[in-house]
Amino acid sequence: MEDTLDIAVIGGGPAGLSAAINAVLRNKSVKIFTNALNYLQKAEKVDNYLGFYNISGQELMEKFVDHANKLNVSFEYGKVIDIMKYNDMFMINFNGKIINAKAVVLALGITKEKMLNNEEKLLGKGISYCATCDGALYKGKNIAVYGNADDIIEEANFLSSLGANVNYITVKKDIKGLNQNINVINGIISDIIGDNKLEGIIINDKYIKLDGLFLLRNSIAPNSIVKDLILEDGYIVVNRNMETNIKGIYACGDCKGKPLQISKATGEGLVAAQNAAKYIDKLKEMI
Amino acid sequence: MEDTLDIAVIGGGPAGLSAAINAVLRNKSVKIFTNALNYLQKAEKVDNYLGFYNISGQELMEKFVDHANKLNVSFEYGKVIDIMKYNDMFMINFNGKIINAKAVVLALGITKEKMLNNEEKLLGKGISYCATCDGALYKGKNIAVYGNADDIIEEANFLSSLGANVNYITVKKDIKGLNQNINVINGIISDIIGDNKLEGIIINDKYIKLDGLFLLRNSIAPNSIVKDLILEDGYIVVNRNMETNIKGIYACGDCKGKPLQISKATGEGLVAAQNAAKYIDKLKEMI
Repeated sequence: MEDTLDIAVIGGGPAGLSAAINAVLRNKSVKIFTNALNYLQKAEKVDNYLGFYNISGQELMEKFVDHANKLNVSFEYGKVIDIMKYNDMFMINFNGKIINAKAVVLALGITKEKMLNNEEKLLGKGISYCATCDGALYKGKNIAVYGNADDIIEEANFLSSLGANVNYITVKKDIKGLNQNINVINGIISDIIGDNKLEGIIINDKYIKLDGLFLLRNSIAPNSIVKDLILEDGYIVVNRNMETNIKGIYACGDCKGKPLQISKATGEGLVAAQNAAKYIDKLKEMI
Repeated sequence: MEDTLDIAVIGGGPAGLSAAINAVLRNKSVKIFTNALNYLQKAEKVDNYLGFYNISGQELMEKFVDHANKLNVSFEYGKVIDIMKYNDMFMINFNGKIINAKAVVLALGITKEKMLNNEEKLLGKGISYCATCDGALYKGKNIAVYGNADDIIEEANFLSSLGANVNYITVKKDIKGLNQNINVINGIISDIIGDNKLEGIIINDKYIKLDGLFLLRNSIAPNSIVKDLILEDGYIVVNRNMETNIKGIYACGDCKGKPLQISKATGEGLVAAQNAAKYIDKLKEMI
């Protein structure tokens, strides 16, 4: 097991990076756990982050990451599956590996997807967000892979290589690089069936029986990774100190609400990190 | 009289500059009214504004101002005396000149001084914040000049040139450039005397009779320029949209509370400007 981190930052966009540099500058150990590229990188032109005029999203992200690198912020790439509190500590399931941290800063970005019907109820009961973690359970079983994750083809291939019978469900017509033994179904999942265990899905008005369903998305619904987190209109509810309803968990940037803008995100990242640092200092005093 | 501005931004630090560029990018006419240099310029090193590592405050402010210049933001240098609401319009007394604006963004920075006893009560009744505006009233009269304004020597000289008998009250021993006919008193004002009109001050436990008292500071207590503005612990109270208790007036940056940090200030400047822009658009619909 690795050493316990002071602050685990979930998400590597502007809010997460700002939180991380501010945590370092407060002498806290910090690591960024992030799943993929940031939406900012796709922005053609950014004009309203003070100090940089007429810069591309790609260039700006490079400057941000460069800043974090100069402060020795380290990154791990992969997926956060869930975060659980245990006494005054958080256990983060990251790609199936457990990370321990004293405080967590959620900088998840914006979740563009809604959760599917029954998704929350059947998560861990046939529904998984993580091929690496749960793939081995489905050897010889019938599964489906669904979502907008950048690496979904690789993940479907990986699940197939583990011996599962994989159905790849997508609206895309032009699919490259998928293993030949994977069955492609064109369509959208309209419902998930099952009570205590996944039974199947409804797609194009037809029922398909399944043992497992891998929902692989670029972004994560906050309350799918942190149980009991209070949301409002899909955004994480925080106070002015960026504290969520769970002591020790902070949120900043797009995942906590509009406007979805860089300088709001970096400002909130700073506030979240500074308050997380204070929270950790208080924990120490109590021990 | 000049044309009515959409948004008057009071203060030229990071919050004010971020508000101004975001107002321009929302197609609003905007001008920054600012009194002096910004504290940021005196910062030796800034490490925690994402995108710039190990930069001096001076350099960072230059980049900020350069960004604003590229978006054709204009600046006026001087002092805001007060801001009054008249129907759906604000009248800003700036160096004695009236500026009209549909919305106001307060980015005043941090007020490091407390108001003196009776200062608020006697403002406009013998106490003035503005030599340019009120100097002519004190020809042949006995006045005092007091405060930390960068240009206080020039202002004292100016008042003397208008024919007032000027006492310059200061804790400084080494004073350069002061007109010879100005009387220097070393000390701190401990009280202001007067009921409906200024009568005098207490300094070094001695009473000095005065007709006028010019309090000239670099920063401004928010409720001294906007009457009825609600403060808490000296900070302007806003909601998450950066709206103050006065419709059409927004506040951002250090003047609205801690942490007193650049990226918090720029993020709030953005939020203030975007909401001020929305407010103006709604005003238009109502006409």
